[in-house]
Amino acid sequence: MAGTPDLIIRGGMVVTGGAVVEADVVVQDGVIAGVGRPGTAPAAREVVDASGKHVIPGAIDAHFHFKTFSLHDDTLESAIRSAAHGGITTVVGFIRGREGMTARQTVDHFKAEGEKAVVDFAFHLNLGPHDDFAAHIADGLERGITSFKMFMAYARRGFMLDDGLLYRAMRGVAAAGGLAMVHAENGSIIDRLEDEFAEAGRRSPVDFSHTRPAFAEVEAIRRAIQLAEAAGCPLYVVHVSTAGGCAAVAEARARGLPITGETCPQYLTLDDGAMARFGSLAKIAPPLRAVADRHALWQGLTRGDLSTVGSDHSPYRRTAKEASADIFEVPFGAPGTETLLPVLYSEGVLRRGLSPAWLARVISENPARVFGLYPRKGIIAPGADADLVILDPSVRWTVRAADLHSVSDYTLFEGMALLGRPVDSWVRGQRVLRGGEFIAEPGQGRYVACAAPGAPAPA
Amino acid sequence: MAGTPDLIIRGGMVVTGGAVVEADVVVQDGVIAGVGRPGTAPAAREVVDASGKHVIPGAIDAHFHFKTFSLHDDTLESAIRSAAHGGITTVVGFIRGREGMTARQTVDHFKAEGEKAVVDFAFHLNLGPHDDFAAHIADGLERGITSFKMFMAYARRGFMLDDGLLYRAMRGVAAAGGLAMVHAENGSIIDRLEDEFAEAGRRSPVDFSHTRPAFAEVEAIRRAIQLAEAAGCPLYVVHVSTAGGCAAVAEARARGLPITGETCPQYLTLDDGAMARFGSLAKIAPPLRAVADRHALWQGLTRGDLSTVGSDHSPYRRTAKEASADIFEVPFGAPGTETLLPVLYSEGVLRRGLSPAWLARVISENPARVFGLYPRKGIIAPGADADLVILDPSVRWTVRAADLHSVSDYTLFEGMALLGRPVDSWVRGQRVLRGGEFIAEPGQGRYVACAAPGAPAPA
Amino acid sequence: MAGTPDLIIRGGMVVTGGAVVEADVVVQDGVIAGVGRPGTAPAAREVVDASGKHVIPGAIDAHFHFKTFSLHDDTLESAIRSAAHGGITTVVGFIRGREGMTARQTVDHFKAEGEKAVVDFAFHLNLGPHDDFAAHIADGLERGITSFKMFMAYARRGFMLDDGLLYRAMRGVAAAGGLAMVHAENGSIIDRLEDEFAEAGRRSPVDFSHTRPAFAEVEAIRRAIQLAEAAGCPLYVVHVSTAGGCAAVAEARARGLPITGETCPQYLTLDDGAMARFGSLAKIAPPLRAVADRHALWQGLTRGDLSTVGSDHSPYRRTAKEASADIFEVPFGAPGTETLLPVLYSEGVLRRGLSPAWLARVISENPARVFGLYPRKGIIAPGADADLVILDPSVRWTVRAADLHSVSDYTLFEGMALLGRPVDSWVRGQRVLRGGEFIAEPGQGRYVACAAPGAPAPA
Amino acid sequence: MAGTPDLIIRGGMVVTGGAVVEADVVVQDGVIAGVGRPGTAPAAREVVDASGKHVIPGAIDAHFHFKTFSLHDDTLESAIRSAAHGGITTVVGFIRGREGMTARQTVDHFKAEGEKAVVDFAFHLNLGPHDDFAAHIADGLERGITSFKMFMAYARRGFMLDDGLLYRAMRGVAAAGGLAMVHAENGSIIDRLEDEFAEAGRRSPVDFSHTRPAFAEVEAIRRAIQLAEAAGCPLYVVHVSTAGGCAAVAEARARGLPITGETCPQYLTLDDGAMARFGSLAKIAPPLRAVADRHALWQGLTRGDLSTVGSDHSPYRRTAKEASADIFEVPFGAPGTETLLPVLYSEGVLRRGLSPAWLARVISENPARVFGLYPRKGIIAPGADADLVILDPSVRWTVRAADLHSVSDYTLFEGMALLGRPVDSWVRGQRVLRGGEFIAEPGQGRYVACAAPGAPAPA
Repeated sequence: MAGTPDLIIRGGMVVTGGAVVEADVVVQDGVIAGVGRPGTAPAAREVVDASGKHVIPGAIDAHFHFKTFSLHDDTLESAIRSAAHGGITTVVGFIRGREGMTARQTVDHFKAEGEKAVVDFAFHLNLGPHDDFAAHIADGLERGITSFKMFMAYARRGFMLDDGLLYRAMRGVAAAGGLAMVHAENGSIIDRLEDEFAEAGRRSPVDFSHTRPAFAEVEAIRRAIQLAEAAGCPLYVVHVSTAGGCAAVAEARARGLPITGETCPQYLTLDDGAMARFGSLAKIAPPLRAVADRHALWQGLTRGDLSTVGSDHSPYRRTAKEASADIFEVPFGAPGTETLLPVLYSEGVLRRGLSPAWLARVISENPARVFGLYPRKGIIAPGADADLVILDPSVRWTVRAADLHSVSDYTLFEGMALLGRPVDSWVRGQRVLRGGEFIAEPGQGRYVACAAPGAPAPA
Repeated sequence: MAGTPDLIIRGGMVVTGGAVVEADVVVQDGVIAGVGRPGTAPAAREVVDASGKHVIPGAIDAHFHFKTFSLHDDTLESAIRSAAHGGITTVVGFIRGREGMTARQTVDHFKAEGEKAVVDFAFHLNLGPHDDFAAHIADGLERGITSFKMFMAYARRGFMLDDGLLYRAMRGVAAAGGLAMVHAENGSIIDRLEDEFAEAGRRSPVDFSHTRPAFAEVEAIRRAIQLAEAAGCPLYVVHVSTAGGCAAVAEARARGLPITGETCPQYLTLDDGAMARFGSLAKIAPPLRAVADRHALWQGLTRGDLSTVGSDHSPYRRTAKEASADIFEVPFGAPGTETLLPVLYSEGVLRRGLSPAWLARVISENPARVFGLYPRKGIIAPGADADLVILDPSVRWTVRAADLHSVSDYTLFEGMALLGRPVDSWVRGQRVLRGGEFIAEPGQGRYVACAAPGAPAPA
Repeated sequence: MAGTPDLIIRGGMVVTGGAVVEADVVVQDGVIAGVGRPGTAPAAREVVDASGKHVIPGAIDAHFHFKTFSLHDDTLESAIRSAAHGGITTVVGFIRGREGMTARQTVDHFKAEGEKAVVDFAFHLNLGPHDDFAAHIADGLERGITSFKMFMAYARRGFMLDDGLLYRAMRGVAAAGGLAMVHAENGSIIDRLEDEFAEAGRRSPVDFSHTRPAFAEVEAIRRAIQLAEAAGCPLYVVHVSTAGGCAAVAEARARGLPITGETCPQYLTLDDGAMARFGSLAKIAPPLRAVADRHALWQGLTRGDLSTVGSDHSPYRRTAKEASADIFEVPFGAPGTETLLPVLYSEGVLRRGLSPAWLARVISENPARVFGLYPRKGIIAPGADADLVILDPSVRWTVRAADLHSVSDYTLFEGMALLGRPVDSWVRGQRVLRGGEFIAEPGQGRYVACAAPGAPAPA
Repeated sequence: MAGTPDLIIRGGMVVTGGAVVEADVVVQDGVIAGVGRPGTAPAAREVVDASGKHVIPGAIDAHFHFKTFSLHDDTLESAIRSAAHGGITTVVGFIRGREGMTARQTVDHFKAEGEKAVVDFAFHLNLGPHDDFAAHIADGLERGITSFKMFMAYARRGFMLDDGLLYRAMRGVAAAGGLAMVHAENGSIIDRLEDEFAEAGRRSPVDFSHTRPAFAEVEAIRRAIQLAEAAGCPLYVVHVSTAGGCAAVAEARARGLPITGETCPQYLTLDDGAMARFGSLAKIAPPLRAVADRHALWQGLTRGDLSTVGSDHSPYRRTAKEASADIFEVPFGAPGTETLLPVLYSEGVLRRGLSPAWLARVISENPARVFGLYPRKGIIAPGADADLVILDPSVRWTVRAADLHSVSDYTLFEGMALLGRPVDSWVRGQRVLRGGEFIAEPGQGRYVACAAPGAPAPA
């Protein structure tokens, strides 16, 4: 080796490619210098023993919200801090500007807001119904954004694109070589049902679920796929929550279409029974679904019908979530970035026996591939960023909001007993977690420009 | 590193995991010691410069015939020698015993026959209609064979299992945790058509194709899948040659069944037009198909509907192939192991622009996974066997039987202008090819016991 | 027989049930008294010789527009007169009230307007976005309307129901035991494309087709089916014009859903090539499609994927259609009720060799079944209304607008050479056509109340 | 009418076409002279009051076995007599010759054997593995046989055609414009399983079912469809007994293939639980299936996936069925022609509320269409044979073998309480049943030549 390495992670069960091998990982100058047989690596400035632990490429939370002028109570900085506590080494967050801002200004604004970020961050750009699509897409590309988010719901909040705008935006994204992301729920059906429920005085958390029926998601996903196909545009369906939605994505993929589906830990581990327990805190969209949907999502995620898992971190303080007795007045969303990796590791790898290679694929390799960060991130291989996480399968712990770091002071996973935990992590070779302790320096995270989006590596 | 490495391959475009990275590969004691950034590896006993070249894990030819008491003109040793010249580092060949031999005796016999092998070898065991399935499967497992081959055709040659036997054998293989392999053509339809053609005096090479219609393959594949599903048995369909067969495999996989499909270079690059050119030399089964089938197979292989490529090396001397003017008297098969990797590299990577990671997957990782050799083989990662091939994209050459090394003194790829070529290779760190020159020592290949079969890593 | 019959139609090739038999049809008191072997019927007041001709149950045009306060230039009376000239014996027309009218008032208004009708008529009721669905549906049912029409396009003309309203209306229709009808095109996509074209100055008839792409119909049909399935509502898709739309209906039917598809003669015989010939006269929606769509529609109609054929008679004077050079200013629609039966008979039975039983099914039995008129209409059987048409296969003629009777003074079938023609017809035993001559008395047509909708009888 | 009619059936609920209308049916000279409104028919030699009863076209049992040199204990004459007691007016029975007989001789032999038949009869011709297909098909056509039966099982009884022969026979049938019928079970799988069970001493009636698993039927049906598609041959799948088989037929039909499926009352009303009750008497093939299969068959039969119901009357005396304690020694089959119509009427129309038009379709119209007897039989329309059945819905009775008329002295429907019953019937105007009493004259039945096969009229 040329010079003494900065770091060697020794003897871990390292996910490299699709395999898990016992190996040493050597880091120098912020990148992975090599992967070698245990014991073969030279002396290094720092040596970390990972024997008996899993080593995966840095986890990426590609479904990540924070306050962008309105909505949400975490700032980019506080949200990233929470993510980093949970083993995330890169987030890809949604941004939208204030009225009148160009997309370039919006990106610059939030890049600046991430100055104190503790891990790396990239952005998706929201396209709203009144935005100049062409200008936004061009600005985005210039600033390293290649994924553009559209809403098929929330007309009353001013987010929804009608189908004609959606199709127009997709054509623009396709022409630019970008990726369209959709929140796929039929907003019109939901709004009319909400009216009916509200008029009938049915305004409780349990009522909420019934205003967003499963078929309204399935229909929207099928529609988005048809529009994307017509537009020739790669499509990423965020937070698939239903068996039918998963099937729609699977069918499209089987036809060879460039469609990628994402789900979230809350849809994998909770169901609509939680509405009674958490009340308005559990108001998220899509809503928590039936138990059968949960099973279908796990199957889809292991078969490769769904490719990624994001947190949909949408942080509000408990006070904001509980301010109104009318569920329709409650803001949407719940925190989740800090629990994303732990929940997946516990429930997928340690409880269901899925391979750590599977975990690395859905939480790191696939997000990296899909959002144009691969092979800079998403892989443990020479030359890649030294974004690394060590997971200790022997830890047992219970999720408590009090122990988490979002300003959002509750969690839907409250009380969940988890196996295993991320204990050490690095971003470009810089420490984030050490022995479970958070030791990151503010500002060590950097804005990352995304390259052209790619396809996930199926299961 | 502990001690000076035996070998460093410097600066190649290395396929590791699903990515292609510029890296050094370090080898010691026959295994891969590490993969590192270019220039970071220490001094070594031997250094090979691979800059500008592709480095992939050793290629595996898992569809490989040689003389087993009858049929074929290559011995195991000569066939392996030919394979090794073409960059193959492991073959998995088909064996069957003479009447009266136990499977254990058969395996031992052929292990012994491979004493002078220049690269590694493993076996599939044929199950014939008169074999004691339970005993053969038990013997096979004991000796490291986990894949069992059955024929759905060739009743008149004594190979065909009727459906009842096929189902019985599959149940046995399933119970043992093995993998069923089928030659899927409807033998009964073929035999009756052959009778009709023979009676009508239609005995030319072109007639031959019409006695084995595409639907006879498609039907057999669909039937094999249904039987395997009923038996709960993983299934490997060898040499898929038709669009319909590929679709049948794809549908089964989409239903979640553990079905793996293989195709061969001859079906990817030749079509039934070649019958006129090559005459009886091109009598293979399944026969060469229509141009549209070729396209469908490429699509299937890139989408992951088909997972592997084998050669179906079935070596006869030209004299044997041309002894009779009656095509039905001509033995089946053509050589191919030596051209397998070069043709795939040229036509897939260099002409169609598929990733070298794709090549590694279909020719190395997937065969290794499916036949229980992974991650010992099929991957460039610390601890794996140092089976490595360097491919030089800058070479241009023309296939000539005269330059090949099977005793089969012709090739269906005669005259094909290829781009790129394997130039260096190692099996467990021992040299096979050096700068395009064959320098392997007889006996450096070893018999490899297969572990439990696995699933391929789709595209 | 009890008393001398009023009429005997002798010796025709009579469609009764699914068969065509040579028979006499006996009529008394406005209903069919019997069907007997040729020559067995008793003397009658009138005897018509139908030997060598086809006799089918009265044709029903169930897709029929006329002026309802605005739009269209035919009145109910003039439109029915045109229909009757073409062999139609019952029309089911679309009605909508003026603002402020209850549905009951609307029905009564148009019943009165049909006082001079020459053949029978029934109604579908339009549900607009501002209508009180519950009241309209209740009123409709009370007045004998069981089919309710919704638009998925034409937001700017105030017709379009958003998905939430559509779903709400479907739930209402389902609860009432009615049938939902949809014009299925994605209006939002069309409106946005129209904007783009208009802004770009692309305002010619050929441009028009491109603003209503095939996928916008296919998507809307798939969406309507999903909403109807969720609402538990039987669904009738009017004027399916694309291969993809036909496939969507076929798939839904194969899943057992109560979905019925209709197409029109213009989609079966014309294609987008006609835009150049007819210019703005051919502005209809959905637009004329590709030649491949035509073929697919014929296949769907003979296989039973589509069940009915209606005219979509939308009568405007040539002056109205040609008033503007801007295609987007031109009103939608073309006349067609008078050519409906002749075109189907010529192109389906006489040119394509489909059975007259097929013709009777798609033009009479199926509309009667679907809209609750069966077995009062739609069948030649004792007790059914004596609605009868004699078709003479030996006539050859050419369609000329000058010979037709709508106030719409042009036809898209201008110049089409047809084989065969309706020559005699009766509604409830009263003459409409005699020897090709129109001899109906004003007022002999009656308003017909529809019963509960049923399923078509597939091919 | 020309002359006084022979018979008028007054005021019944007559199935004519797809509708049920109150009508008089007039018969003269053995054919239907007319269908008229109640009360309109003239005086006649005989008048039968059918008010409150259903009148359907004569029922056809198109799956009908009798002794053909070997097997079965009914002669053609005794089997027909039993059928006629149950309201059947035409049977289509399976014939095969003795070794050395031409098909022409075989047909002539059995025509002669039907000299005393009480209702009409037609034949299907069996094609065995050693038959000269071309000669048999030509002979059959010449004698009025257009449907040819092949077995995919029973190799050991000498009936099974291997796939090559099956494909050859289908090509011959296709070229002749005929219809291929298959008994679709995978005989090879069944034989091998039977061996395994027999060797293990598992030879009880319950064991029998497990030697003929559902997948062995499904696979064979799928295979037969593929072969028929390749041969371009219309296919009739007899006695579909499984949900999967029904789905296979439905899929093929949805693809537009000319495939017709039949089931039998025993599969619609009994399940494998009956093996314990009836023991070896219930040994039929395919065997009785699971309850879920029953439900699927009813669904398939009402949706039109299956088109016909035959009895598979396979009459043995109880002594023959109970001669051996080894279930594998017991002959296959059970009687059923006499209960066919009563069971369908009771369970389909009166208990499940299906339309009498449905009953007429599956038991009369569709068999007539498919086997080339339509519109001579299978319809109540002028000119059709006066084959008529009056069904009285008010009768309640219990099936007792003692009351039936096959020489087979037991029934699988023993003790079943049925609603309704055929009470009057005629074949070509001649009486068979009168008020539930059998009064047919021997010899009044005639051999009927079949014309070209047609497609069924789906639900």
